[in-house]
Amino acid sequence: MGKRVAVVLAGCGVFDGSEIHEASAVLVHLSRQQATVKMFAPNTDQMHVVDHLKGSPTEEKRNVLVESARLARGDIQDLSQLSVKDLDAIIFPGGFGAAKNLCSWAVQGKDCLVDEQVKTVLLAFHAEKKPIGLCCISPVLAAKVFPGCEVTVGHDKDDRYPDVPDTAEAISQLGCKHICKHVNEAHVDEKNKIVTTSAFMCKAPLHEIFDGIGVMVQEVLKLA
Amino acid sequence: MGKRVAVVLAGCGVFDGSEIHEASAVLVHLSRQQATVKMFAPNTDQMHVVDHLKGSPTEEKRNVLVESARLARGDIQDLSQLSVKDLDAIIFPGGFGAAKNLCSWAVQGKDCLVDEQVKTVLLAFHAEKKPIGLCCISPVLAAKVFPGCEVTVGHDKDDRYPDVPDTAEAISQLGCKHICKHVNEAHVDEKNKIVTTSAFMCKAPLHEIFDGIGVMVQEVLKLA
Repeated sequence: MGKRVAVVLAGCGVFDGSEIHEASAVLVHLSRQQATVKMFAPNTDQMHVVDHLKGSPTEEKRNVLVESARLARGDIQDLSQLSVKDLDAIIFPGGFGAAKNLCSWAVQGKDCLVDEQVKTVLLAFHAEKKPIGLCCISPVLAAKVFPGCEVTVGHDKDDRYPDVPDTAEAISQLGCKHICKHVNEAHVDEKNKIVTTSAFMCKAPLHEIFDGIGVMVQEVLKLA
Repeated sequence: MGKRVAVVLAGCGVFDGSEIHEASAVLVHLSRQQATVKMFAPNTDQMHVVDHLKGSPTEEKRNVLVESARLARGDIQDLSQLSVKDLDAIIFPGGFGAAKNLCSWAVQGKDCLVDEQVKTVLLAFHAEKKPIGLCCISPVLAAKVFPGCEVTVGHDKDDRYPDVPDTAEAISQLGCKHICKHVNEAHVDEKNKIVTTSAFMCKAPLHEIFDGIGVMVQEVLKLA
């Protein structure tokens, strides 16, 4: 029987929600591994609505759960409904939504607050020794909630990862260990069962990001 | 050198825009084939804004180009800027947006009108013998603009394709030939250089839809 995996979304669009191609890649790889997927998102207003053509915020209001439902083709539940006992693993795609709607990293960096429901869910999977997969900027959620854990957000000696040195430094300041990995790799923190990959933290061709997410998904399922 | 391929989007979300996973799959496969991608969408209001959680239309207004920019991570142009001479092929992902914002098939079926810019672009690629790829419901655009062409929207003797018999019948009434194909296959109309695959017209696991779109993309690039 396939593993039961929660995917937590944060809206729909890289600048104010879940990064669409990361979320889709997670779902394609989970499908190929015959996992049973349940999608969730917090039923809250987005921090921003960004006009993705202009790259600037608008005055609009949109709800994280309602916009996430676009990625889920309607098959999604309020994150408050998530029951850890019915699931074997959990995965968080990236995108600014993870840093705006699941925590406040986008504005406060390492001093951010993590959404209470998100924190509760992360702590529950960790306590049950069920694996947690994260990509792109989402690993900061693990860094904030699990001091001492190991994560990657990419490579700090490669120009294709322009934001990695600063993010890795902030992760270190939280007492965690940043591990340099390329976009087609994932890092596995065996002790904490946390699996991370850099995805769009790297300016790589889309298929390399897709493949790196595939490695992350496979490692999560191995640990489940 | 990689082929230069236009991808035409119709919003962002299966019920009122481009089907997200189809669009993402097209882009992953084009990336793997080292194609140079340019994305376009019409700068018009969406026919509907659908709340994807409830499945019902709202009173909101959203612009097709602005919402499509979510899928394109901002790197998208108004369809009116598309220049056929700079491109080797064109691909249309599916989703209701293709049947609502690129033509009026969703409400008028075979009597629909095709958006003038979309029609102009399709006729221009066809006249230059440059290939056209379409998936899911988008093949109706080809059926409407190129009477006599061959397309597939899936299989009419398989319960996993519930909407195919009616759609195939309408395509036949337009003077075109519907070819039954499974979700992991594409049909190539060699004469018209039109390549189609059923994608989400089939209730298949996501990775099978992904793979079928991969076949479509490969066949388009072979013809380019």
